[in-house]
Amino acid sequence: MAKSTVERMLAGFKSFKAMYYEQRPERVTDLMNMGQKPEVLLIACSDSRVDPAILTNAEPGEMFVIRNVANLVPPYEPDENYHGTSSAIEFAVRDLKVRDIVILGHSACGGIQALVEHGEAGKVPERDFIGEWVSMAKCCLEHGPDVDEVSRRSIGNSLQNLMTFPYIQERVAAGDLNLHGWWFGMKEGILWRYDAATDEFVQGDE
Amino acid sequence: MAKSTVERMLAGFKSFKAMYYEQRPERVTDLMNMGQKPEVLLIACSDSRVDPAILTNAEPGEMFVIRNVANLVPPYEPDENYHGTSSAIEFAVRDLKVRDIVILGHSACGGIQALVEHGEAGKVPERDFIGEWVSMAKCCLEHGPDVDEVSRRSIGNSLQNLMTFPYIQERVAAGDLNLHGWWFGMKEGILWRYDAATDEFVQGDE
Amino acid sequence: MAKSTVERMLAGFKSFKAMYYEQRPERVTDLMNMGQKPEVLLIACSDSRVDPAILTNAEPGEMFVIRNVANLVPPYEPDENYHGTSSAIEFAVRDLKVRDIVILGHSACGGIQALVEHGEAGKVPERDFIGEWVSMAKCCLEHGPDVDEVSRRSIGNSLQNLMTFPYIQERVAAGDLNLHGWWFGMKEGILWRYDAATDEFVQGDE
Amino acid sequence: MAKSTVERMLAGFKSFKAMYYEQRPERVTDLMNMGQKPEVLLIACSDSRVDPAILTNAEPGEMFVIRNVANLVPPYEPDENYHGTSSAIEFAVRDLKVRDIVILGHSACGGIQALVEHGEAGKVPERDFIGEWVSMAKCCLEHGPDVDEVSRRSIGNSLQNLMTFPYIQERVAAGDLNLHGWWFGMKEGILWRYDAATDEFVQGDE
Repeated sequence: MAKSTVERMLAGFKSFKAMYYEQRPERVTDLMNMGQKPEVLLIACSDSRVDPAILTNAEPGEMFVIRNVANLVPPYEPDENYHGTSSAIEFAVRDLKVRDIVILGHSACGGIQALVEHGEAGKVPERDFIGEWVSMAKCCLEHGPDVDEVSRRSIGNSLQNLMTFPYIQERVAAGDLNLHGWWFGMKEGILWRYDAATDEFVQGDE
Repeated sequence: MAKSTVERMLAGFKSFKAMYYEQRPERVTDLMNMGQKPEVLLIACSDSRVDPAILTNAEPGEMFVIRNVANLVPPYEPDENYHGTSSAIEFAVRDLKVRDIVILGHSACGGIQALVEHGEAGKVPERDFIGEWVSMAKCCLEHGPDVDEVSRRSIGNSLQNLMTFPYIQERVAAGDLNLHGWWFGMKEGILWRYDAATDEFVQGDE
Repeated sequence: MAKSTVERMLAGFKSFKAMYYEQRPERVTDLMNMGQKPEVLLIACSDSRVDPAILTNAEPGEMFVIRNVANLVPPYEPDENYHGTSSAIEFAVRDLKVRDIVILGHSACGGIQALVEHGEAGKVPERDFIGEWVSMAKCCLEHGPDVDEVSRRSIGNSLQNLMTFPYIQERVAAGDLNLHGWWFGMKEGILWRYDAATDEFVQGDE
Repeated sequence: MAKSTVERMLAGFKSFKAMYYEQRPERVTDLMNMGQKPEVLLIACSDSRVDPAILTNAEPGEMFVIRNVANLVPPYEPDENYHGTSSAIEFAVRDLKVRDIVILGHSACGGIQALVEHGEAGKVPERDFIGEWVSMAKCCLEHGPDVDEVSRRSIGNSLQNLMTFPYIQERVAAGDLNLHGWWFGMKEGILWRYDAATDEFVQGDE
């Protein structure tokens, strides 16, 4: 009988434990006992096809990761509301003192598609949250209606939003923090990197 | 000279591309061209040590993933604000129609520690966002001050918050959706699973 | 179009290179530049299903490996002929000074099946070499005709043959070298270990 | 306390079992129950640094593997002696009907070094087997004394020896079997491929 994904995940955990705790404990002992010290904050989409650890062959401890719909960063707006993404950015930059922030977008993004279809309205019919959420990037609709183009432009927008966080602006200015925009073309398997000088994405995996 | 994590990530992407696009393209071709169909929504912490794909040896396409500080789920509160976590839950349940939602917490969580230290106030000194964010689980402080115990109770609280989403309640009642609470003890490498019948966590990787 | 195995191997090499030489060069630099120092000599079957590195999740540098049909060890017989297996044993024990020798057999072994069918004759019809090769273990036919039982007994026989090498006998006696017999039950995925005290195999992966 | 390699291997087996038998049994069930059907015979060195499955990211079932000192192939010489390498070649070509044979050599080979130092004599002092074994390739000493150059030439010699097996000659002539010579430069991490037209090795991993 076919395994469910949950069953696969539990079996996968056994393999993780055998590999990291029994076979090569030296790879995780300090990390698990002494605390994390990641160099990178990665902000990626929740999409199941663009898992950052799979895409970058990461090891435990390397990346502090935010995943939300369409890998969006809101502008700095401190108020009494819940700010999940901003909280994680704050923790990564101020407490963990990461050296790099990478925003990782991708082609055929369902969240960006909702933005293209319903972003002006800021409301997706019969949905409570997603229309408002993706409207955060509605300024990018001027580059529409190609979903992939909007998704690339949205990365630029998120990079600008990151710079509205005062401590990010400060540390970038001081050369202590680097911001990166990456875009994964899923069909061809190509990673593109944002080049601020030209405001364009260039092939970045070579 | 030591590699930076960003350099490692870019080299890791080359290995991902060689493995999935050149060596075994049959594993991702449909997924990348036809769209995702994950069975599981996983809500995990941003902590660099608890990467869900590494912990479960996942393949691309298996899990739709939210990662925020302390793997928190807010209650259902539709309004005009940005709701990153709720948007992703909505998309996973209503559009992708996942069959399982797993909340994955872990020991020694920095976000829960902030909750224990400053949650009553709902404000961490010199921080703009994290105090408010983690205060979402402040009802769990009655089980304090042990950070690990509060983090386990917070998973129970998030499971309850999931049930305030009307479509989740409906699909759970219909037997179409299962909710799971998992807690990863990092030091010993043990995965615990929430047992609703006893309101306790039991060792779940065996 | 489906990839050939050779194409997969070449793509796999690109992934190996990206992972070990570009992403985590510290894992192989010394090894590749300064020479090998494996602790273990592993003698396994050529069978494509029992690849020792896959079965043990090995890293480069950990195991010096002989693979021949049916993981056989001949007795010590120095003469002017070519002795592939004995040469590798000699090099591993005398030059590399391994601490452990593991003989790894497995169920449903084609070489042992040839032994069971044609071993008394020492000749497989229409074949030039394999009959003679597997006849090395023909003393194990007294435990036949079950192929798996003969293959387990053949591991015991190979362990005895190892002890005919004077330097192995010497180092085992001195406690500097340990001999192990392992048998992989492919169908169930169970690893059995030879227990010299009882002359039986016991489940050994736990 | 540091783990021994044998302990690591046993823990690695647990991870293999969890991954292949519990998490993704569909990848091995047929293979383990119905028998192997590899497309490739790979003849590699026993050196712990050049494990073929690690170098090519292989899956169980893909390669039938011979590993001996210096990845040597003797000429076809059917007699009553034990012929480990020839037996495996015979089984792979005649019974398994592989489509490709790959000989995989590498830089800084200890066996080839013994050939360069003692090959004319055909005898390594204080050693019983290795001098005779590597003398199989002594015709390559005319290209000496550079160990890497002799090791590359030895691959050419082994390819010629393969062609002395009548059924190999026949199947190559019929276009049913392809012979390949690969050489792994360990220091730089480069895979070179033998080009019969020019009798030279060219970079082959691109």
